[in-house]
Amino acid sequence: MIYRPNFMHDPINGPGNLMDFLDEPFPDVSTYEDFHTIDWLREKSRDTDRHRKITTKSRESYWELIKGLLDAWSGWVVMLLIGMLTGTLAGVIDLAVDWMTDLKEGVCLSAFYYSHEQCCWTSNETTFDDRDKCPQWQKWAELMTGNSEGAGAYVLNYFLYISWALLFSFLAVSLVRVFAPYACGSGIPEIKTILSGFIIRGYLGKWTLLIKTVTLVLAVSSGLSLGKEGPLVHVACCCGNLFCSLFSKYSKNEGKRREVLSAAAAAGVSVAFGAPIGGVLFSLEEVSYYFPLKTLWRSFFAALVAAFTLRAINPFGNSRLVLFYVEYHTPWYMAELVPFILLGVFGGLWGTLFIRGNIAWCRRRKTTLLGKYPVLEVIVITGITAVLAFPNPYTRRSTSELISELFNDCGALESSQLCDYVNNPNMSRRVDDIPDRPAGPGVYTALWQLALALVFKIVITIFTFGMKIPSGLFIPSMAVGAIAGRIVGIAVEQMAYHHHDWIIFKNWCRPGADCVTPGLYAMVGAAACLGGVTRMTVSLVVIMFELTGGLEYIVPLMAAAVTSKWVADAFGKEGIYESHIQLNGYPYLDVRDEFTHRTLATDVMRPRRSEPPLAVLTQDSTTVEDVEALIKDTDYNGFPVVVSRESERLIGFVQRRDLTLAIKTARQKQDGVVSSSVVYFTEDTPQAAEACDPQPLKLRRILNLSPFTVTDHTPMETVVDIFRKLGLRQCLVTRSGRLLGIITKKDVLRHMAQMMNQDPESIMFN
Amino acid sequence: MIYRPNFMHDPINGPGNLMDFLDEPFPDVSTYEDFHTIDWLREKSRDTDRHRKITTKSRESYWELIKGLLDAWSGWVVMLLIGMLTGTLAGVIDLAVDWMTDLKEGVCLSAFYYSHEQCCWTSNETTFDDRDKCPQWQKWAELMTGNSEGAGAYVLNYFLYISWALLFSFLAVSLVRVFAPYACGSGIPEIKTILSGFIIRGYLGKWTLLIKTVTLVLAVSSGLSLGKEGPLVHVACCCGNLFCSLFSKYSKNEGKRREVLSAAAAAGVSVAFGAPIGGVLFSLEEVSYYFPLKTLWRSFFAALVAAFTLRAINPFGNSRLVLFYVEYHTPWYMAELVPFILLGVFGGLWGTLFIRGNIAWCRRRKTTLLGKYPVLEVIVITGITAVLAFPNPYTRRSTSELISELFNDCGALESSQLCDYVNNPNMSRRVDDIPDRPAGPGVYTALWQLALALVFKIVITIFTFGMKIPSGLFIPSMAVGAIAGRIVGIAVEQMAYHHHDWIIFKNWCRPGADCVTPGLYAMVGAAACLGGVTRMTVSLVVIMFELTGGLEYIVPLMAAAVTSKWVADAFGKEGIYESHIQLNGYPYLDVRDEFTHRTLATDVMRPRRSEPPLAVLTQDSTTVEDVEALIKDTDYNGFPVVVSRESERLIGFVQRRDLTLAIKTARQKQDGVVSSSVVYFTEDTPQAAEACDPQPLKLRRILNLSPFTVTDHTPMETVVDIFRKLGLRQCLVTRSGRLLGIITKKDVLRHMAQMMNQDPESIMFN
Repeated sequence: MIYRPNFMHDPINGPGNLMDFLDEPFPDVSTYEDFHTIDWLREKSRDTDRHRKITTKSRESYWELIKGLLDAWSGWVVMLLIGMLTGTLAGVIDLAVDWMTDLKEGVCLSAFYYSHEQCCWTSNETTFDDRDKCPQWQKWAELMTGNSEGAGAYVLNYFLYISWALLFSFLAVSLVRVFAPYACGSGIPEIKTILSGFIIRGYLGKWTLLIKTVTLVLAVSSGLSLGKEGPLVHVACCCGNLFCSLFSKYSKNEGKRREVLSAAAAAGVSVAFGAPIGGVLFSLEEVSYYFPLKTLWRSFFAALVAAFTLRAINPFGNSRLVLFYVEYHTPWYMAELVPFILLGVFGGLWGTLFIRGNIAWCRRRKTTLLGKYPVLEVIVITGITAVLAFPNPYTRRSTSELISELFNDCGALESSQLCDYVNNPNMSRRVDDIPDRPAGPGVYTALWQLALALVFKIVITIFTFGMKIPSGLFIPSMAVGAIAGRIVGIAVEQMAYHHHDWIIFKNWCRPGADCVTPGLYAMVGAAACLGGVTRMTVSLVVIMFELTGGLEYIVPLMAAAVTSKWVADAFGKEGIYESHIQLNGYPYLDVRDEFTHRTLATDVMRPRRSEPPLAVLTQDSTTVEDVEALIKDTDYNGFPVVVSRESERLIGFVQRRDLTLAIKTARQKQDGVVSSSVVYFTEDTPQAAEACDPQPLKLRRILNLSPFTVTDHTPMETVVDIFRKLGLRQCLVTRSGRLLGIITKKDVLRHMAQMMNQDPESIMFN
Repeated sequence: MIYRPNFMHDPINGPGNLMDFLDEPFPDVSTYEDFHTIDWLREKSRDTDRHRKITTKSRESYWELIKGLLDAWSGWVVMLLIGMLTGTLAGVIDLAVDWMTDLKEGVCLSAFYYSHEQCCWTSNETTFDDRDKCPQWQKWAELMTGNSEGAGAYVLNYFLYISWALLFSFLAVSLVRVFAPYACGSGIPEIKTILSGFIIRGYLGKWTLLIKTVTLVLAVSSGLSLGKEGPLVHVACCCGNLFCSLFSKYSKNEGKRREVLSAAAAAGVSVAFGAPIGGVLFSLEEVSYYFPLKTLWRSFFAALVAAFTLRAINPFGNSRLVLFYVEYHTPWYMAELVPFILLGVFGGLWGTLFIRGNIAWCRRRKTTLLGKYPVLEVIVITGITAVLAFPNPYTRRSTSELISELFNDCGALESSQLCDYVNNPNMSRRVDDIPDRPAGPGVYTALWQLALALVFKIVITIFTFGMKIPSGLFIPSMAVGAIAGRIVGIAVEQMAYHHHDWIIFKNWCRPGADCVTPGLYAMVGAAACLGGVTRMTVSLVVIMFELTGGLEYIVPLMAAAVTSKWVADAFGKEGIYESHIQLNGYPYLDVRDEFTHRTLATDVMRPRRSEPPLAVLTQDSTTVEDVEALIKDTDYNGFPVVVSRESERLIGFVQRRDLTLAIKTARQKQDGVVSSSVVYFTEDTPQAAEACDPQPLKLRRILNLSPFTVTDHTPMETVVDIFRKLGLRQCLVTRSGRLLGIITKKDVLRHMAQMMNQDPESIMFN
């Protein structure tokens, strides 16, 4: 092995101390600036250096060996901590939301901090049939006027419902505005961007964690059409970031930190749905960018710890891990695939409508006066939501309760309106196997109310997502799909009951049999709508599979998910998260977009034909003054170093930041370095230069001798691939060894957007 | 956009027809030779070209549009076909193995093609308690001598058992030897290598498919200590390859073909265990190399289709999808984690022992006379196995039946010896909730037999895996773990029963309670041993989770899997598949190995200091004769092209194959091209050259103008990363634009192996 001085790869000898020299002056600042892209290759080699140092040291003494082993284990410790904190926070959020949602309608007299359900649980006077009613739980009107019936009580309850909703949402938006502006939205688009290697300082900070947790409870409780699932992923990532700061291995390396964050995202989804495997797949499919397989195992660990912590807290009071536990007793039949696929089409259309509508509205918010009054916007939308939601029993309750009811199969003991079927009096009432029955008046009323709720949810969700409060869209999307699905399900069921002899029912639906499960339709619809909006595939099906716990219903779910994705993709490739990333202009290079155009690196590189030549340094003929002028005149992140301006042969790349610091330090500490000193990037400084005055400034140690290069003939698809897979910030373009230009990540993104607009038709073939 | 001629990226104009010109002379041969590495970047850009062509054409007419859409859908069609064929084959294999395994002991009189179980099913004279015995099923001795008891019958049965086993294994090894030598082994190491971009022609061919399916049945039925799970993955990949040939999109592109193969691997595991999600994760974690997310969804589809096809065939006769269906009625307790972790340690040790022993034996087979007599080896091992296996009831039956019995909880209706507990006569016999009971004599006998079976399995499996017959090691590994686990489980159970007052049992195990489930221990042990051998993590836990169908037991499984991996990793990083890849010397660049050494590209590149200079071509001064001499004298896959020997500035890279073909064609078809013609790689040929005699040969169209380069100072960790992530075959090394040398994938692998041997201690910190 030949020793060569290279600043990044020699931690022991002199040049390596650049790292410390960079870290020490600004102990609290990482080496990247806010809203900049990280260099994955550099982060990786920094970690290897650290690792190598520990390995070398650990041979010296037992103490160092133990320290080394502790360092190796710190990844697992971080995962354990993330899992536990995420699970705890999710449990607390669930409990608080339950309580505050019910607070809008009434209060528990035996203990004000009990939710409706908990209140009536502890009561002994509740009968099973009427388990929602117990004397301890009083609606506001009853408590205040003593009168629980009549128009007066209704109006009073209505008024208080709206007031509480407005109070909660006002508190939420104010807290977000004042303390943590980053706490708004779902957070998933930003987390995707951060994981792809972008720095958004404070986005995962402690304040954001605290405020997002509190305001999430307020926002969900206010009854707005939003969910807690997306924001929980943000909360989990904040936890991940928090625990990263305990270990210098993670806090000082932006690459390693992202490994932890992508596992934290898995923990977030795991607690949101009680689906650890689905969470890991979600993280893999949707959120993560550089996802080494090592992280897969750790993510799974974090997701499981989180799920079990949540179960220990038991917020749903049923020892169930999952958000919507369902159990169906009837298989599905081939013929049912037709309505399932129709639900898939509906989901795809809903996805398209939602994404287009929401993006248009968000763009309007960004560009018009509307954006200036976020508090007012939230108040108005909450007001409208509350006024319209209260009269309809299906929108008044919390959305997750609604979904839960829609998913449910009508057992014999079910008392809800949706299960108001006409029973055959001769029939024995077994719990499991109830044949199809004609719908009673309750079902017809429910159908109307559900249809109204569907229209209401569709419209209001488009306006809600993207306001300045924490808002997830998993639950509203699922609600839309579940309502549509249940309506279709009941329709099919009644058709099958009344027309046993139709050819499509003949083969599988004899009279007196239980052929159609409307709850399954609701679930399929929910999966379709969620898929249409987010374009999740495997993770969606796995999450749904974990809810039902059986492979039995995976085919309907897949059929709907596939259809919905295809339909939605036909109208536009991007899911809601990618659309928001684009809207916000984050530099995100999607791994799934295939770049299929025939452009070459030379078409994308800067400088273009009309622009001034590239700002370069020469290896032995630039003075300190020249360098300072270059730094002052340009805002590039770094400069290529060439042999001479004539030959233009590339020898390396130097970071702007390193250059500034090195010159500043040299001017302060090194005698004889003045403006006219020549900067040398060569291996050896000529003897003559050493002797003469002014003293030369030797900067080879800050020179990256292995910059990434491609030739000008390299097709852009290869360049895009390289940027994606290696996580580059920039890449130099050469021809026959001569430097021609530079391509940065932003150039690549700009070029891709330009090509996409030029040729939108090519989408359908991907 | 500026048009530049470049052979790979212009499908319409002249230069692009190089593709056809290469394909046509050898219609059945792909552009890579056997045992060569593919160039992923090239395959990808070829696919983009094809895609672009279709998109352009599809604008011309509706017919082309439809053809384009069909092309886009062909991926799904291939998946559907793979799923259906894999599922069918798995079902047929299961049925055949069942029948032939039982054939060793006896025959069904009512229909010779019934297995023991099917035979007694159809019989009306079977009682529930004695469901294994029915008059239609006769052992050989009974059938031949009419006498089913006594020493004579035993000896006759013993003899016939051995004879059948020898017959089956002789048939298996002969078929493999004569018709398809690639059908031996598990196939997973080779599939991993193929998916990483290596060509092994015929490994996934039709003959291999047919012979592997047949010999797999024979090998498993012969009672050897091997399983069908690994080979099923090979069978599935053969199916994948088969269906690839239907679509030119896949058959003509080695990169796209691998996408299909990696989905096929998921389908293989899916049917092996009845675990579709586990299969997808196995493919992702263990087998796949370049796994675009698009494939994830398709793999899932293929895995599901395969699983449902298998269920439709219903080989186990119980409508269950999974291989070992278990249901436990008792939760586990914290204190039990201690034995679970001990089982993890056992699994890790078993993994290490197995890998070391097996590799040592396989190496001996490769280097000594042993390797010359594969048929004899199989016969001898089968003989030993059969002789030792028959007397012990736990080894006589098929291994999967054994595992199934070991996993089972002892319900009240269980008649097996393992469930021979002393019942409390006062106790009501409910099916589910049976308290811990003292073990009866049957259990003690079973324990002895199991201990012997354990030793036997451990030893014989080491010698069996790697013989010239299809052999998987999932099942034998799981059997070792399940036996060990069950023994530990029974020991803990009896301890808990007899010592309720011990401090460790006091808190959770009251007398009369059902505290310990020995079946769960068997399952945990199986997971631990499988993990120790293969080093699977997430996919292992998910497969086990799909078997039990509940999150309840995921913590014990994870604890054991993690411990086993850590213990096994402490003795050596590599799982059995990686070890076999190394043993066979396949060029496989493991994505999980981290390269942490401080070497630079210059230390690895060829030519080394002492070697002759790099074989290069110049752009405008090499004659046809020179080129031909170079091709003759060297065996490199390609040659860099430089401006001139003096400046050594790189302009491109030309493939040996393209060069040979181009010169051959030119000599035949182009007038005036003779040995002294100058070969021009420049854009424009000088006017003078055009005019004079002999005619110049213009070969710019076969020049790859975007060869991959790194500088000599690039750290090897970056180079390794680039090779892995971009799937390069070779990479040129430059300094300041001057060509210094070349690094091929084999150089990288050689260097990594060298570094690993030099510094084995660094392993523990990874």
